Amino acid sequence: MENFNYYTPTKVVFGKGTEEQTGELVRQQGCRKVLVHYGSGSVKRSGLLDRIYGALDQAGIDYISLGGVVPNPRLSLVYEGIRLCKEEGVDFILAVGGGSVIDSAKAIGYGVADEGDVWDFYEKKRQPQACLPIGVVLTIAAAGSEMSDSSVITKEEGWLKRGCNSDLCRVRFAVMNPELTMTLPKYQTASGCTDIMMHTMERYFNQAENMELTDGISEHLIRTVMKNAKILMDEPDNYNARAEVMWAGSLSHNGLTGCGTDGGDWASHQLEHELGGMFDVAHGAGLAAVWGSWARYVADARPERFAQFAVNVMGVERAEDDMDTALRGIEAMEEFYRSIDMPVNLRELGVEPTEEQFRELAEKCSHYRKRTIGCVKKLDVDDIYQIYKNARG
Amino acid sequence: MENFNYYTPTKVVFGKGTEEQTGELVRQQGCRKVLVHYGSGSVKRSGLLDRIYGALDQAGIDYISLGGVVPNPRLSLVYEGIRLCKEEGVDFILAVGGGSVIDSAKAIGYGVADEGDVWDFYEKKRQPQACLPIGVVLTIAAAGSEMSDSSVITKEEGWLKRGCNSDLCRVRFAVMNPELTMTLPKYQTASGCTDIMMHTMERYFNQAENMELTDGISEHLIRTVMKNAKILMDEPDNYNARAEVMWAGSLSHNGLTGCGTDGGDWASHQLEHELGGMFDVAHGAGLAAVWGSWARYVADARPERFAQFAVNVMGVERAEDDMDTALRGIEAMEEFYRSIDMPVNLRELGVEPTEEQFRELAEKCSHYRKRTIGCVKKLDVDDIYQIYKNARG
Repeated sequence: MENFNYYTPTKVVFGKGTEEQTGELVRQQGCRKVLVHYGSGSVKRSGLLDRIYGALDQAGIDYISLGGVVPNPRLSLVYEGIRLCKEEGVDFILAVGGGSVIDSAKAIGYGVADEGDVWDFYEKKRQPQACLPIGVVLTIAAAGSEMSDSSVITKEEGWLKRGCNSDLCRVRFAVMNPELTMTLPKYQTASGCTDIMMHTMERYFNQAENMELTDGISEHLIRTVMKNAKILMDEPDNYNARAEVMWAGSLSHNGLTGCGTDGGDWASHQLEHELGGMFDVAHGAGLAAVWGSWARYVADARPERFAQFAVNVMGVERAEDDMDTALRGIEAMEEFYRSIDMPVNLRELGVEPTEEQFRELAEKCSHYRKRTIGCVKKLDVDDIYQIYKNARG
Repeated sequence: MENFNYYTPTKVVFGKGTEEQTGELVRQQGCRKVLVHYGSGSVKRSGLLDRIYGALDQAGIDYISLGGVVPNPRLSLVYEGIRLCKEEGVDFILAVGGGSVIDSAKAIGYGVADEGDVWDFYEKKRQPQACLPIGVVLTIAAAGSEMSDSSVITKEEGWLKRGCNSDLCRVRFAVMNPELTMTLPKYQTASGCTDIMMHTMERYFNQAENMELTDGISEHLIRTVMKNAKILMDEPDNYNARAEVMWAGSLSHNGLTGCGTDGGDWASHQLEHELGGMFDVAHGAGLAAVWGSWARYVADARPERFAQFAVNVMGVERAEDDMDTALRGIEAMEEFYRSIDMPVNLRELGVEPTEEQFRELAEKCSHYRKRTIGCVKKLDVDDIYQIYKNARG
């Protein structure tokens, strides 16, 4: 078992009607001026934004707002947010939305607390030293950003999608009302469920010894999301199913499912990041589209681990040979993805890269041959190219 | 599913050799003077205390120390700690030990930040408004106090054992090296494992709807502790088994196993508190001694829940009738307790109360007929008396 740190300072306020507590939660932070950060018109149309403004007014909180965050959130809006916050003396950011909005808020938070270019942190040129405090009203169960140390931003110039991890950006409070996710379209719900499962699977597939307690929590979490994702395809307003998925989203990415492991593989996420940067696909769908190709490429490096996954998560009967069991588990996972209308290859994702684009994806994903990705197998530019190609469909 | 709050701000630093980071962790808290609080001579004899002093010296931290905490920690030592901290200008407490030492540190923390009598908080006359920040080097896996909001103190006058719960006392950091628990005697190890299981079981048995994600985490946590407790009876220095139990101890009581429930039953803990106050028994052993009697007394109020426990945790085959399954599960749990030399009744615990003492236990536990305990069944003074009597053995 590996040594580990576990740090989840976020105060979670979970359940029906909890967004009404937002004003009081912000007030407890002792801030002077808040930036309310959000995405598309849906939080306006649903009336949520007005309810949040009302709660802030009632708590006597001064605020300004900045909308327009898109999926695969953009660096240009982050720069705009930083400028706005500095001009207006903002000292707290309230993100109302899903992972994209929260990640954008985290990037703004880093930028306001720094004199240089915030992109430096995403290019790993420097480590952030501070971040404005952030609160969240969550409207999409997927990215787990409401409890994670992660932020992923896309730079339009070159369409580079890069992440920055630091405990400094961990959110102070997260208001999580599953009812707010009931209006999500089916495809977004399925894509979110896939992202949640993948945050756990990325940690589960590793190259170290494991912790029994963590393994069982992870296996149960994935099974629970699968079961409730299927329910949500038919009953989008099933409260309990929405709640199971929402809480699983936070637990999948707050660190719990990695305790005692070596940190996990993360190659599928890195493969998807380049797809998201180049083709602007939904993150979860992109993950589903590359996972099978990745899994088949690396499974022989840890067949016993893939076999455990097949049996304990996918309910596959154990074959004599671990590798056979492993492959059946991968097939079963792809069947599940299909059952919730997720793609299992690039064609189904709606993406058909040219040969030149395949080469470019591999070059970018390997940071132009400066890094390998993954730990189950360390993957260089040629491996990465092959996995993308095998995912073609 | 019930609404819930989840707040676990403690920074966990887990694994081999992590106590070496203690000096740096304390330094990061920006404090001026530390009280090192500990229990018996074992942390001295093992050399741990000297290593901690060395780490503090190296980090340039000024400190004083106060030892002498005993199991079922006493109010008189808490008063002494408060006086000492006020005299010496202490602004941070470092607890080196198990639940008793941490609980004592929390009580001192409340007392230093308050002008009145700290016992008021334990008698629920007032709610604490502040607490000195606390750090922990954990040496016993049991109480979960390193991540919980709980502190339990015994007042010698009348031998009253009372608890106080508040987020204010949540520990800033917890250094958790499973190696430090390897020298614990068998009985203490078994008693600790029982306490960990019971923190989860108290939340598991409730009178509300439940959360599937929480149920599965709880069931796996209890199974993992049972498996590793048995291993530790034969191999007390098995690192992985010590680590599984230690991390389970924190997760069992930091709130995770209660998410989405109504808070749980807690009658067994309250029954044990009076035993601990009157007879000074090991907490976990006391819990094992009363649990079966409690479970048989209340199971008919939620047979389906006890049956789920029997099947999913104890591996009992489901009978036609939930109540039959439930009773088999209770028997199986008692068999497990016996297998790790835990008592399943008061006689085996080494306690044989007189009739007068049975009456006194029931009176005290019902706060002299001012409260009921439990939620699976609400238990009044007569129920409590009967459960104690049935536990006689």
